[in-house]
Amino acid sequence: MADDMQDKEYVSTDGYKGVRDFYPPDMFIQNYLFKTMRHAVESFGYVEYSASILEPTELYKAKSGEEIVNEQTYSFKDRGDRDVTLRPEMTPTVARMVAAKKRELAFPLRWYSIPNLFRYEKPQRGRLREHFQLNVDLFGVTDVNAEIEIISVAHAIMQAYGARPDDFQIRINNRQILNFIMTSVFDLTDEDSYKLMKLIDKKDKITPAEFELQTETVLKEKTMTFVSMLEASSLEQFKSILQNTFSTEAIGLTELEILFKALAERGITNAVFSPTLARGFDYYTGIVFEVFDLNPENRRSLFGGGRYDDLLSVFGTEKVPAVGFGMGDVTIRDFLESRSLMPPYHSTTDLYICRVTENNDKEVYDVAQELRKKGLCVAIDFSSKKVPDQIKTASKLAIPFIIVIGEDEIQTKQYKLKNLLSGQETMVSLEEIAQTIKRGV
Amino acid sequence: MADDMQDKEYVSTDGYKGVRDFYPPDMFIQNYLFKTMRHAVESFGYVEYSASILEPTELYKAKSGEEIVNEQTYSFKDRGDRDVTLRPEMTPTVARMVAAKKRELAFPLRWYSIPNLFRYEKPQRGRLREHFQLNVDLFGVTDVNAEIEIISVAHAIMQAYGARPDDFQIRINNRQILNFIMTSVFDLTDEDSYKLMKLIDKKDKITPAEFELQTETVLKEKTMTFVSMLEASSLEQFKSILQNTFSTEAIGLTELEILFKALAERGITNAVFSPTLARGFDYYTGIVFEVFDLNPENRRSLFGGGRYDDLLSVFGTEKVPAVGFGMGDVTIRDFLESRSLMPPYHSTTDLYICRVTENNDKEVYDVAQELRKKGLCVAIDFSSKKVPDQIKTASKLAIPFIIVIGEDEIQTKQYKLKNLLSGQETMVSLEEIAQTIKRGV
Repeated sequence: MADDMQDKEYVSTDGYKGVRDFYPPDMFIQNYLFKTMRHAVESFGYVEYSASILEPTELYKAKSGEEIVNEQTYSFKDRGDRDVTLRPEMTPTVARMVAAKKRELAFPLRWYSIPNLFRYEKPQRGRLREHFQLNVDLFGVTDVNAEIEIISVAHAIMQAYGARPDDFQIRINNRQILNFIMTSVFDLTDEDSYKLMKLIDKKDKITPAEFELQTETVLKEKTMTFVSMLEASSLEQFKSILQNTFSTEAIGLTELEILFKALAERGITNAVFSPTLARGFDYYTGIVFEVFDLNPENRRSLFGGGRYDDLLSVFGTEKVPAVGFGMGDVTIRDFLESRSLMPPYHSTTDLYICRVTENNDKEVYDVAQELRKKGLCVAIDFSSKKVPDQIKTASKLAIPFIIVIGEDEIQTKQYKLKNLLSGQETMVSLEEIAQTIKRGV
Repeated sequence: MADDMQDKEYVSTDGYKGVRDFYPPDMFIQNYLFKTMRHAVESFGYVEYSASILEPTELYKAKSGEEIVNEQTYSFKDRGDRDVTLRPEMTPTVARMVAAKKRELAFPLRWYSIPNLFRYEKPQRGRLREHFQLNVDLFGVTDVNAEIEIISVAHAIMQAYGARPDDFQIRINNRQILNFIMTSVFDLTDEDSYKLMKLIDKKDKITPAEFELQTETVLKEKTMTFVSMLEASSLEQFKSILQNTFSTEAIGLTELEILFKALAERGITNAVFSPTLARGFDYYTGIVFEVFDLNPENRRSLFGGGRYDDLLSVFGTEKVPAVGFGMGDVTIRDFLESRSLMPPYHSTTDLYICRVTENNDKEVYDVAQELRKKGLCVAIDFSSKKVPDQIKTASKLAIPFIIVIGEDEIQTKQYKLKNLLSGQETMVSLEEIAQTIKRGV
């Protein structure tokens, strides 16, 4: 067989383009990111669900961008000629799952998942072909309590990562306000409304003059009033422009007022009204929000979400109110790295046992087992290297503690425990090894 | 948009065929399976790695069954005309990762992962198109210490699941023994060796008479000696037949003797010699093992592994000795269910707060936050249902504890904590709620 192989071309060690290998130090970071997410969302009563990455392609044709299905997904025909897609997002899947068991499930439903998602795009910083995304959804709550909680959860995760209130902003809007203004105040046609929404969405990417120019084609003489509304620095200001100019109050404003008041009462000081925030055109039906990185060198949206009460209707199920958000691992990892909030790598293994000879393997194993029973993670060096080289291995593996076992240690049952980070050494018993390591000394 | 949707056909809530949705009670089981695996393998010093499910198809053409690549994998061309495969197994990926960073990595390397794997097969019990598989590998150890440890890890996982020694057997063989006998004792051609190996592999599926008949076509008059060797009930018996008949000792026997002795010393009482065990034809180069379900109604292999020292050579890297195994979630789940070893479902949420009115939301939130800070997972019922119906919701969600908060509770700061399983009720403070729930009372 070895001969066979030498006749072949060697296989490349490169993985597939645009996806990641997770070596243990990378996996440590993924596990840190996920553990923090899990802990925060579970503390609010969210429970985990999951699904296969394989979905019928049909699921994505229903809503939200034919464009995504056609150009950006991994879609193919399976050997049974069925159209399959590697899920590009989790929302259609969770909607499918809720719709399928709607009668059996108890609402309100607090669900979360950390799926991997696939998009066929040109690999670039922060845009990979496979990434992970925390999805948090609250189903079955019609009132603003759902938004208060979901935004509190998003805030709690940022806090758990060590982000300070002035590191980020929670931008909030209600899509009903813009809808109301466009249809009931400006009396726009569907076509003009859509045109204006598109314009608002790209407002930050074009110059103010350009924005005004293009807005005028839709709003004519009302343009400047509209611009001043969009630039309102607070909900109050926005409301007063609306009242003073049009003697009306938009649907959705009161909800936002309750939301901002509740968030303030709950100690969330960095929530701001953002009248241009729309977050895409498809799912959302009400309040939307976005967590925004305030880093002056990299101002950008980190993640966001909102209310999408209509989603389940594509399955022919009666509507289920839903509020949720998605938080990607790549973006949050960049954010934490830029703020120096990422913990340094260490192995999950607590202790490395170096062997002086190969004659005491049973005794060495017994020591390891004893410590494992006390809750430690223990690896034994099975190489025949000299002890200093075994210690170097432990150090390279980022294992924090070592002991060396030879005849003496087996006789005396006393071990010199060395902390490889501090260099500190102490003579201890097995019981003391467990205690010292658990204390992290 | 709602109108748009009503014009469309409804989308089916069925997922893709042969894969699973994990509703919270299913996810609870997955998390139990994975947590137990992680805990056991990490205690032996194994650290987690991972990789994308997308791999270049080329990776699977190198070794191990053209058949698998051609017929059983999900392989397709991406939009850039590259051949991509959804990984059907993890070993080629881990070999690729080790080969890619061989010079930087510190050996011995103890690595584990719990990847999802994809095979295009007819969905049936225990054979899904997507399943998860714990992969545990020890790289860089040439001697039998590696096998002793890897088999101890497999045993430790079974123990952690609550399996008793007489629930399963660890069957062990060394492929070098059969190789030695076929080439050096029987002087078989490569073709006849292969034919005989295939026969041995299917020995348990055909009648003894059929096996003898087919074996005779290869071994002629040596058939009965060979059959008696294969039926040896112990390593000693096997060894003595070999010595008495052929005056030789097979390569690989001594290694097995050391292994069995070490396993016995380590308290593993259910390891047996199994001279017919081969475990496929590709990777393995030495000792192989299999954990076998002794359930009389369902005797079968649960999982297995062995030594594969040649794998990295397909990457043009010098050899790295490796011993490992893979343990699938579907098989082990079946095993645990058949032995009633699966824990009953409960929510990760500890406590459900029912609201008497909607007028105290801030106070209710404060209570929840206080308890979250004390480490509890707390959900609030935001519905306007009557309290008994809110309690029913908690019960349906399998949340173990509830409190009801109204004006009284806010005034007195005393809460009636109810254990929904036992029905027990106690008047307690917030501090006592945390203590009681953590004690699990």
